[in-house]
Amino acid sequence: MLITGISYPITGHWIWGGGWLAEMGFGDFAGSTAVHSVGGWAALVGAYILGPRMGKYDEDGQPRAIPGHNMGFATLGCLILWIGWFGFNPGSELAANENVAYIAVTTNLAAAAGGATATITSWLKDSKPDLSMIINGVLAGLVGITAGCNGVSYLESVIIGGVAGIIVVFSVPLFDKLKVDDPVGATSVHLVCGIWGTLAVGIFVEGANILTQAIGVISVGLFTVIMSTIFWLALKATMGIRVHAEQEFEGLDIAEHGMEAYTGFMKEPDALGTTGMANRMDIDRGLQKH
Amino acid sequence: MLITGISYPITGHWIWGGGWLAEMGFGDFAGSTAVHSVGGWAALVGAYILGPRMGKYDEDGQPRAIPGHNMGFATLGCLILWIGWFGFNPGSELAANENVAYIAVTTNLAAAAGGATATITSWLKDSKPDLSMIINGVLAGLVGITAGCNGVSYLESVIIGGVAGIIVVFSVPLFDKLKVDDPVGATSVHLVCGIWGTLAVGIFVEGANILTQAIGVISVGLFTVIMSTIFWLALKATMGIRVHAEQEFEGLDIAEHGMEAYTGFMKEPDALGTTGMANRMDIDRGLQKH
Amino acid sequence: MLITGISYPITGHWIWGGGWLAEMGFGDFAGSTAVHSVGGWAALVGAYILGPRMGKYDEDGQPRAIPGHNMGFATLGCLILWIGWFGFNPGSELAANENVAYIAVTTNLAAAAGGATATITSWLKDSKPDLSMIINGVLAGLVGITAGCNGVSYLESVIIGGVAGIIVVFSVPLFDKLKVDDPVGATSVHLVCGIWGTLAVGIFVEGANILTQAIGVISVGLFTVIMSTIFWLALKATMGIRVHAEQEFEGLDIAEHGMEAYTGFMKEPDALGTTGMANRMDIDRGLQKH
Repeated sequence: MLITGISYPITGHWIWGGGWLAEMGFGDFAGSTAVHSVGGWAALVGAYILGPRMGKYDEDGQPRAIPGHNMGFATLGCLILWIGWFGFNPGSELAANENVAYIAVTTNLAAAAGGATATITSWLKDSKPDLSMIINGVLAGLVGITAGCNGVSYLESVIIGGVAGIIVVFSVPLFDKLKVDDPVGATSVHLVCGIWGTLAVGIFVEGANILTQAIGVISVGLFTVIMSTIFWLALKATMGIRVHAEQEFEGLDIAEHGMEAYTGFMKEPDALGTTGMANRMDIDRGLQKH
Repeated sequence: MLITGISYPITGHWIWGGGWLAEMGFGDFAGSTAVHSVGGWAALVGAYILGPRMGKYDEDGQPRAIPGHNMGFATLGCLILWIGWFGFNPGSELAANENVAYIAVTTNLAAAAGGATATITSWLKDSKPDLSMIINGVLAGLVGITAGCNGVSYLESVIIGGVAGIIVVFSVPLFDKLKVDDPVGATSVHLVCGIWGTLAVGIFVEGANILTQAIGVISVGLFTVIMSTIFWLALKATMGIRVHAEQEFEGLDIAEHGMEAYTGFMKEPDALGTTGMANRMDIDRGLQKH
Repeated sequence: MLITGISYPITGHWIWGGGWLAEMGFGDFAGSTAVHSVGGWAALVGAYILGPRMGKYDEDGQPRAIPGHNMGFATLGCLILWIGWFGFNPGSELAANENVAYIAVTTNLAAAAGGATATITSWLKDSKPDLSMIINGVLAGLVGITAGCNGVSYLESVIIGGVAGIIVVFSVPLFDKLKVDDPVGATSVHLVCGIWGTLAVGIFVEGANILTQAIGVISVGLFTVIMSTIFWLALKATMGIRVHAEQEFEGLDIAEHGMEAYTGFMKEPDALGTTGMANRMDIDRGLQKH
């Protein structure tokens, strides 16, 4: 509410409402910066202030994988977002004209390219194609093309999406190492590839200037980081932003909604999966702290 | 087959085929009454004649929660219905004109409003936002706006959907107390909010009359209750309407389709979840009866 | 890559690129032969060369059921394909004209008819309506109507889809007996019903000739079988086409992607389900062989 009510409208006006970035010629058609990097910055600040989940880091500070519980749902979510983007990017034309079809094609090409390069990159880097990286590659391509979807050629949309798919595979473990616990790689997808997509407009779109694009990225980023830091700290000081350790271990479906997501299925004694036995100690420590 | 072959066409003709309700000026654009309350009445009669599931009521007659086994699927189903409604309400225009876009907006606003008010209402009433109520709130908003989607303003569609989202949170436990076991709250969504949406046409739509709307609700309801009572009792007397207690306990995936819905996953010894131990006795009693 | 890069474009040109089948008047509007039976033949050859999964056949060579692990996902996949077909068949018009709507209706009628006849046929044949057969019936109807969707009447589309739904229920166990292990019935859906849909054009479409249709089915089939045999054998001789027995038992999510599909859920000790104890011996034999 604080971000979408106060901060997002201000930077949105800079870009889309005839504000100073618009006057400078900053290009961000459907929101690689206005939407995605704004969300990404706010999420990054939030994840940093919140701190990692219990058990995410071992005693040497090395990140542990906490794998998703249902990769079918994760993949389906990716496909739903992919389809939804056809409302988002072409819909930003705010009219039913022939550009809508053109934007749908650049959007789709970038998504496919991002999925393909993330598959190959993950395969080369970690010896197996990691499904969560393939999913993030598709989303990275979509975020990347969002700024320039109306102004780049088909080939350029493949390049933009393809580069985004490579970036995301290296960005996810980087945030892990920086001790920012981002369970789904949202910062890599929305922030890092939002920045890439905005700069790509400066590289590929006729009349756009990469310096102007960089100024937009930095100014919107700075403003959003400052505002969201204030918002997160205010929330932390008042209503709190973290559940109790016991609730975190029990699961937020129960703590927040009073219901199990999967009633009747037996879960492994330690829901954190294969790394669970080591994590259990962190949880016990976490419980003792509270 | 009996409802859609015999009963539904008759009341449908009253409303949409130039019948006596149409001549009175009864307004029900896409079917809050013609479709949803008809289905809701038939379901209510069926649930009453069928009786509750084993274990639904304890020895004092108090309802026990039998939680859904996969809330991700339930949520996805809600979203699929939400999208499908854009075929249903705008499609009832039976033409590709500008009203289609208008109806899509009122439909969407009512769904969002219903989800929002159900979230808040459930949070205030039960101290946590119950996901199944949020789902039902969205569907309640959609059912509520169906009658008037072509004739109300955007603000009125928010009011209609928002009221529906509040109604459904109180209606679901009411049917539970009335000993009508409705596992997904379909009667609250389709019957109760179908009635609300039909009456709302009388309140908000220029030229509509709330008395006429009430006459339509009551007459269609009476006719459907009578017809579906005959149908359900005829089915009960001939082919039967209830599986054996053992099949009910085992699960209808196995009893009706000869296959497990989730082969290879371990289920809790008692598939009825946390209230299972108490329920087990009911099941044993149920098995002895058969 | 080999099929879509080399083989599919050649037969596609015969049919859609002005090649010899096109000149003969062979009719295959959206690809019952060009797409579906080509994929079906290649899959059949691959499944034959690969051989059955461990435990699929007992010591007497009788097929054992290895049921799917999540019928909700299977059903959802069917619905997604059904919706996707509205892009595929009407989209093959390559224009936004009134035929698009006509083709959408024939496509939908055939899908519904295939689902209905598969339900009834499976019910009569095996005493219960098998959900996997209902799913395959819908897909069979869709594949069947693909060749003639633009040229048949509504009634004819119901007949074509309905016959496809009956065919698929008998075809699936036939391939099982022929020792071709096809876990999802893809050969029955895409190959057998692709052939049926292509021949149906000869039966129902004015000006089409069933002999010409049969020549197309046979020639495309022969060419694809020869090419895909070469491709599969080349792959088998070089990079290999089968995982190790241990990986097959462990699951391809882990072997191929390095991650569990459902982390945190407890699985039955033998993931092959109810027939598992017998299968375990095959697996041990398979493991010893490697």
